[in-house]
This record gives sequence, structure tokens and C-alpha cells, in this order.
Amino acid sequence: METNSPTSHSYFSEEDSVEAVVSRMGDKSDARLKTVMASAIRHLHAFIKEVEPTNAEWMTALEFLTRTGQMCNEWRQEWILLSDVLGVSMLVDAINNRKPSGATETTVLGPFHVSGAPRYANGANICLEDKGEPLVVSGRVMDTDGKPVAGALLDVWQANEDGFYDVQQKGIQPDYNLRGIFATDINGRFWFRSIKPRFYPIPNDGPVGQLLEKLGRHPNRPAHIHFIVGAEGYQPVTTHIFAPDCPYLGSDAVFGVKESLIADFRLVDNPTGARELGFSNPFVAVSWDFVLARK
Amino acid sequence: METNSPTSHSYFSEEDSVEAVVSRMGDKSDARLKTVMASAIRHLHAFIKEVEPTNAEWMTALEFLTRTGQMCNEWRQEWILLSDVLGVSMLVDAINNRKPSGATETTVLGPFHVSGAPRYANGANICLEDKGEPLVVSGRVMDTDGKPVAGALLDVWQANEDGFYDVQQKGIQPDYNLRGIFATDINGRFWFRSIKPRFYPIPNDGPVGQLLEKLGRHPNRPAHIHFIVGAEGYQPVTTHIFAPDCPYLGSDAVFGVKESLIADFRLVDNPTGARELGFSNPFVAVSWDFVLARK
Repeated sequence: METNSPTSHSYFSEEDSVEAVVSRMGDKSDARLKTVMASAIRHLHAFIKEVEPTNAEWMTALEFLTRTGQMCNEWRQEWILLSDVLGVSMLVDAINNRKPSGATETTVLGPFHVSGAPRYANGANICLEDKGEPLVVSGRVMDTDGKPVAGALLDVWQANEDGFYDVQQKGIQPDYNLRGIFATDINGRFWFRSIKPRFYPIPNDGPVGQLLEKLGRHPNRPAHIHFIVGAEGYQPVTTHIFAPDCPYLGSDAVFGVKESLIADFRLVDNPTGARELGFSNPFVAVSWDFVLARK
Repeated sequence: METNSPTSHSYFSEEDSVEAVVSRMGDKSDARLKTVMASAIRHLHAFIKEVEPTNAEWMTALEFLTRTGQMCNEWRQEWILLSDVLGVSMLVDAINNRKPSGATETTVLGPFHVSGAPRYANGANICLEDKGEPLVVSGRVMDTDGKPVAGALLDVWQANEDGFYDVQQKGIQPDYNLRGIFATDINGRFWFRSIKPRFYPIPNDGPVGQLLEKLGRHPNRPAHIHFIVGAEGYQPVTTHIFAPDCPYLGSDAVFGVKESLIADFRLVDNPTGARELGFSNPFVAVSWDFVLARK
């Protein structure tokens, strides 16, 4: 840290505002942090110069940013939500997943993944309450050459019939409702039972919800199931599969939809199959194959 | 609010990320908010594309922004501090104060102004504790033609000898220590007694202090006294006067210094004058004239 003498320094001005701030960083600070902050300062000042906020407008912005932090707690991350609804989470995801052609595409993790979900045998039903349309999910995990990947792990989670994850309804939903970890068999196959996902609003009782409302945007995410799929020697994939018939598919509040992630959720009329699955007839089925790229 | 049908919409992509988000805003939302948010989204995405953060880096950024909000309370506004140390507060100030030539220049308000300071007669001593070098401040308020402005109000505040404002040390400093409101007389003159200001660190036990440290920047503000000067029919001025001999004058942590705001704090050796002021000899004196522009 140094104190510049007054004479060695020109004071802050509107014209040289970026240089005034960027030049203040010390020689010994972390090079990556300096690069990131110099870029942040340049873009932030360009934004301010473009919109020329009044003092009152800038104070309103600072109050919004303050409330966004104050809304966060152990179960709620409003800043991730803000990043999500401004398309930044998907942009960071895109930048970090320029994968070899053929691997399953990625999408946002979202704020509701939890570690330590139960490990189940294939065929288990992850829906621990008596709600929703029965669904069977099956498929394979393959490498980019189309060869099955045995022993791949699939970490699965989704919202319930009312549009909430278990962690949003502690004491209302069973713990670990609609979560589970499955492994592929020797042929790369997995299957499990669940319920058909539904669209739901992102938590919209905070600053981010208020912003969306003021912008004339709805808070809904189209119906989807979350997956993290990984295997030894392969790059893990954080992704969703989406139901094709959801009215919000074209306007996901967090921009997570990709064409290649829209699955075929079929209504199956098969009384014998239903009986074998312990389902009422008809039920819903979806087949989905994941493709992993080698590390 | 509308739901776009999937077919009317292309999904999010790295290339078209800005358009994907900006195009989502509804027709009925506030035009100014839309303009500001479109600009914010464009600059934010440009920043992300430039620095290409890893997922872990972006999460670190979101955690920093979260903590910045959570540090705020009734007496602490960490987001204003962040805006200050990134030069944004001064930039907003500069944009909003492109005044007619001749008016006193403005600078940051800072987070420590309070409404309802005591109204004093000229000559009062605003230092309510027995600390610091005695100072007498005197001057005039004039219009841009050099004519005195009678009945102008000067709202004054400063940190104490230990570098803290009264509101930072509730119960330690007397309430309203080193704050007061004075009016100019028929000749536009004012005067009051105080102590010579000292440099002090901005509150640096939070995220903003940690950021400054990582950037190799000191947290200090050069010695100054705050003023808001206003009069009927004139544009009020929020400003400081700075002491010329402060080692941090060239590196104010919040970029508030302007050449035109550096005053001459003279050491006065005058036993009679000191006795009349109730000061020990020698003491410090500063003369300063404020110039207001008509509304």
C-alpha cells in the first residue's frame, strides 16, 4: 500500500474516471483479481455514463442491491436468482462448457441442489409423498463414441406437484423427497420412478421477484428434472431434461432451456406395465440418454 | 405478462445472450427502468464475456455481493461504500453537477450525514468533547456574481480526533458531536469553532475493506470537513473542504478530492486571538468562501 503524493496525481474527473480508479490498484495484488476488477470498473463506469442516473436513481439501485443480499439465508440465495434472471448464470455456464461435439449440453445448476441425497437401486421411486402423475424415467449413459458407460452416477432432483423443492418446504415435504442418486448397470442403463414435473415460479417474494414484476416478466420455470451425471474419467454434466408441452418452455425465467434438452414425455396406456410399476394406468414415461466427454 | 410459445422463440445462446434477456421485458413496463436495465444487462454480459469467469469465480463474486448487503444495518451502508471505492459515487456526482462556471464544486455526500443537527449561532464550537487541535472556520457564501447571500444555511459535519463520526461511536462520543447548522449574516458571513480534521479509514472490517486490501489499496480518506450549503433560490451544494497537508490527499479511498476544494489551514500564533476564542495558542484557522448558482 502506498500513499501517492498530491503532486504525483491528477484528481478524479468524469472523463478519466476509469483510469483514476484502476490506477489505484497496487503492484502486489493478485493479477487475476486486478484483471477482473479493471474490467468490472470499466464496464460499470460505461454503464453509468450511458444511463446518467440521478442521485435518487442510484440510491434506489443501491437499496435494491442491499435488499438482495439481505434476502439470502441458509435456504435462499437471492443473488444466484438475480444472476439467473439476468441470463448471467447461463452465460457463465455457456462459457465454461464449450464441450466437444456430442456431449450432452449443460444448463444451470439452480439453487436447490443438495449434497448427500439417498443412493438408490435402479427402479426406486424418488417421490416420497402421494402426489403427482406417475412417471418412469429410463435411459443410458454413453461416451461420445456411443459406447455405454457402466457405473456412471446420476444425481437427480426435481420440484414436487405443488412446485416446491423439499428444502423449500422443510417439515411439509418428507426430507429428500424427489431426490436420489442412481448408478448405471454394465450396459450403461439406469431407470427410476418419479412424478411428471410441472412448471413453477422461482421464489418471487423478494427483490428479484419485484424486479421481474416491474419488468413485465413472469417468474416461471418450465417443467424439468435436474441431473448431474458423472463417471470416472469423464467430464461431469450438470443439466436438465424439459417436458415438451409446458407453456413456459419458450420463456424460462432463468433462460435454462436448450433445444437439445427437450425430452419426449409420453403418456402410456398399458395396464400391465402400470401394474408392474405400481402405477395407476395411464402413466407417463420418458427415455433419455446422456453422453459424456472424456476428461 | 406473456408466455411466449416455444416456436416463436430462439433459446439462450452465448452469442445472443443480451438479446435473449432484453427481449423478455414486457411492453407495459416503465420506459426508464427498461432503458436502465437493458444497458445494465448489455454491460454486465460484456464484462462476463471479457473476463470469462470460471463457475467458482462467479460463485465467489456472488458471495461477495451477498456479504456486502448483509453487512448493512441502520448505521452502516456497505453498498454506498462499495460504490464510493469504485469511483461510482463520484461519477454520479459529477454527472449530476455539471454546474455553471463559478459555483463551488461538489463531492460525495458519504454515509455519515444525519438530518436534524443542532442549529447554532455563528461562533459556536461544534466540538463537544475535549480532544483535537482547535480550529476556527470563517468565510462567506456568495452568488456567482460575487454578491453575498444572506441567510444561507451551512450544514457541517466531520469526524473526531480519533477518526470516527459520532454515529459510529454511539455512547462514546456525545450525540451530535462535530455537527451543526449555521446561517450567514447580512453580509453573507459565517464562522464557527471546531477541531482540525484528520485523515481516517472508511469502515474496513467488512467486504469492501477486504476488497481494498486484496487490491493493495489503503482505506483512508484525507482530512476534510463536510458541508451542505443552500439558500432560497439557489442550487444547494454538497461538498467538503480538504486540509492541504494530508498524506492521503492524492489517494482518497473514495476519490472525493478536487483541486478547487483544498483549503488553506493556517497555524496561527496569536495569544490574544486564542484567548478571545477560548483556545490554547497556537491554533488553526481556515477561511473559505462558498459560491452558489441560482436555480
